[in-house]
Amino acid sequence: MAELSQELINTLFDTASALADQAGQVILPYFRSPELQADNKQQDGFDPVTAADRASEKAMRALLAELRPQDGILGEEFGPKDSESGLTWVLDPIDGTRGFLSGTPTWGVLISVADETGPVLGLIDQPYTGERFFGGPGRANWTGPHGGGVCQTRTTTDLANAILFSTFPEVGTPAEGAAFAKVAEQVQLTRYGCDCYAYALLAAGQIDLVIEAGLQPYDIQAPIAVITAAGGIVTDWTGGPAHNGGRVLAAANKELHAQALALLANTP
Amino acid sequence: MAELSQELINTLFDTASALADQAGQVILPYFRSPELQADNKQQDGFDPVTAADRASEKAMRALLAELRPQDGILGEEFGPKDSESGLTWVLDPIDGTRGFLSGTPTWGVLISVADETGPVLGLIDQPYTGERFFGGPGRANWTGPHGGGVCQTRTTTDLANAILFSTFPEVGTPAEGAAFAKVAEQVQLTRYGCDCYAYALLAAGQIDLVIEAGLQPYDIQAPIAVITAAGGIVTDWTGGPAHNGGRVLAAANKELHAQALALLANTP
Repeated sequence: MAELSQELINTLFDTASALADQAGQVILPYFRSPELQADNKQQDGFDPVTAADRASEKAMRALLAELRPQDGILGEEFGPKDSESGLTWVLDPIDGTRGFLSGTPTWGVLISVADETGPVLGLIDQPYTGERFFGGPGRANWTGPHGGGVCQTRTTTDLANAILFSTFPEVGTPAEGAAFAKVAEQVQLTRYGCDCYAYALLAAGQIDLVIEAGLQPYDIQAPIAVITAAGGIVTDWTGGPAHNGGRVLAAANKELHAQALALLANTP
Repeated sequence: MAELSQELINTLFDTASALADQAGQVILPYFRSPELQADNKQQDGFDPVTAADRASEKAMRALLAELRPQDGILGEEFGPKDSESGLTWVLDPIDGTRGFLSGTPTWGVLISVADETGPVLGLIDQPYTGERFFGGPGRANWTGPHGGGVCQTRTTTDLANAILFSTFPEVGTPAEGAAFAKVAEQVQLTRYGCDCYAYALLAAGQIDLVIEAGLQPYDIQAPIAVITAAGGIVTDWTGGPAHNGGRVLAAANKELHAQALALLANTP
């Protein structure tokens, strides 16, 4: 990772916050709107989740064209834009669309900046609850409706005391699901249904492990930045880099990561 | 259900709101506190979730002693108090303690008033997000951080278009789990992990079905009041009253309820 000046880091965090503000404003009118009724959606073919997703990414791209025209963009909804600066914004305008569709406040806006080696800094934003989790060089903190604090991962060192999250009990392929189950059998508590919010809870020291499969790069780059800055570890299921997506293991610390990795590593 | 005057209904709703305010104030300092770290908890035997649970119920009981001394109380944490008025407050000071322990904002405070036939009115409160869902005679509404609205259940009439929630994928006994799976196989989307928040989402028209087993009376009486007032139906798995807990089927409307009930009814 190239060394970035503190001034540039500050600018990038400010830009990320401005993007999240913009995305939240665009998305919230769609969240829990009557048009989200599944039956309405089917009658006229209008998909309000996709509409919110696209409107959010469009708004962020427009702001980046103004504030950071030289940077590249990799987003979920529109084609990639090449970088002239060496930096690329990685955007997931709504991570957790099924949570969004169900009215749960566990979806989020994922915004990060990557160089050629992976994510440099990022944030996870939940516009409905008003929570934002930041991570990057020299920064690991969160803000929320009742104040905020430092993001620091937990010190749990035994799987038997760990809290594990995944979005669905049916994790990936049958082989991936079986590997996940091996970890789930050993932990204290397994919970489901949190989308990207689980990564935020890991960074904020509330849970110990997140295991998922079949992710896209834009699903995981912001979580990597936020969790790593908070002291955690995010890799694929072989211990290699996870920023290209696929199978992801996020852990609060090295000890826990090693124990979970041992159970996941030989998944075909 | 005895006919209550509008004045008494208003008083009871005001009291329920005052109780929820009080509970939220007491609970929030515990939520996401460093003492909630699983390893800290084990070192000194202090269980902050139980502490928050008990402090919350204690605060609500103290307020009831002042505002409604003649009413009975059925709470999760302390012994029952007999009613002299025919009305009993049914309190779950923190529903969803495992969600609470994990830092997710899907737990809630459940407050309802019952007469000899079951719940008359109630509310589901989420102090962290600042959401409150009300239901009773002449009232079905919610308030939240970005405004509020009417609670009205969805009009989805086919299981194939329905969104189903349950707290865990392992629902109750093996036979109960198998019955749940029969419904889960037919719906559009099944999500987990929401505790009492799922009932609030059903009342607010965001999802279609909640199915659970092994509930206590204080887990379900407030949801029954809130969902029924919003147009939904809550019964046990045979179509009978659910206010004594056990197996619960909550549905957005009659048609959906009948379809799910047909799959659950013969569970041994």
